[in-house]
Amino acid sequence: MTRDEGRRGAHVLRAVVDIIAERGLEAATMRNVAAAAKISLAQVQYYFRSKDELVAAAYQSVTELFDLKLATVDLSGPPRRVLRQALELWLPLDEPRARDARVWLAFSAAAATSPVLKEIAAATDIELRTAFARLLDAAAAEGQLPEVTDTETEAALLLAVVDGLVVQGLALPEDLRVKFLSDSLDTHLNRLFLA
Amino acid sequence: MTRDEGRRGAHVLRAVVDIIAERGLEAATMRNVAAAAKISLAQVQYYFRSKDELVAAAYQSVTELFDLKLATVDLSGPPRRVLRQALELWLPLDEPRARDARVWLAFSAAAATSPVLKEIAAATDIELRTAFARLLDAAAAEGQLPEVTDTETEAALLLAVVDGLVVQGLALPEDLRVKFLSDSLDTHLNRLFLA
Repeated sequence: MTRDEGRRGAHVLRAVVDIIAERGLEAATMRNVAAAAKISLAQVQYYFRSKDELVAAAYQSVTELFDLKLATVDLSGPPRRVLRQALELWLPLDEPRARDARVWLAFSAAAATSPVLKEIAAATDIELRTAFARLLDAAAAEGQLPEVTDTETEAALLLAVVDGLVVQGLALPEDLRVKFLSDSLDTHLNRLFLA
Repeated sequence: MTRDEGRRGAHVLRAVVDIIAERGLEAATMRNVAAAAKISLAQVQYYFRSKDELVAAAYQSVTELFDLKLATVDLSGPPRRVLRQALELWLPLDEPRARDARVWLAFSAAAATSPVLKEIAAATDIELRTAFARLLDAAAAEGQLPEVTDTETEAALLLAVVDGLVVQGLALPEDLRVKFLSDSLDTHLNRLFLA
């Protein structure tokens, strides 16, 4: 997608994501990105020929950062704690995660009308469902999921819960978010896991 | 928001929603809307002074259509069937609902960085959580929800499941959607309701 994966390309992508987080995808024009990255429009165009290319590369870079984030989860604790820790990475429980959530939602919406972005969205969903299914398998292997028969479907449902809580959480005033998100997530996990 | 709630204003809003459904929110410029509605730019500007105003009015009109849709649910059947029927209204189970889902997702994403749109999103969420809670109350009154203690939290979780399934469903190839959405939703409802 980019002609070079070097430092300045990454700088441009960071500028795109900053703009999307604060002003939405619509504001991420080549011109605004150049201004935010403090480079010329021609320099942006050197890396990305069009806004479509720029946005796809930014989406790809964001999903790679999310993968790195998921890899930071400590897998050594009790399965329920490990799973909850993984799920909490995506919820807007503080401003850095709310920022990530706004960016994720912007790309998800754009993916609904763009085949190129939809491919990235679909691949990300598969990756997350698989990661969640493996965490559920670990819990099931310890006999902690008496209600669960199919961890693949359960993982899809878990991803739906997280994605849906992100959407509702972002619409709530910030001071109501943490309790809302925790209570909702626990209601779901309480039904999956042995008391 | 509009200077007139008449016929021509509604025509403009329909054009906005058509564009968003097919090409995304970014394509819904005053100029594109004028072209789609087969009127002049000045006529669009007569109703809506800016794209922001136009988009907010379109979002408001869409949520009103969703309310009307919710009001079509036949409340006379068994509580689980009534609830499932209400939830199915939002899932992209066919192209008309996939279209509505794309529009909903576009507005939800835009709401994350726009205070005016966020107000509409928050009000819509409250309305849906309340509607779902009343349907759950009806089921609980018949003793069908042994696992549910707090129908407000359960309604929020249900809305999360629906919103999250919409996001995942739109990223899936169309031929996989119906089975995926039905299986996931049933997995959740099976745990709420008595067998």
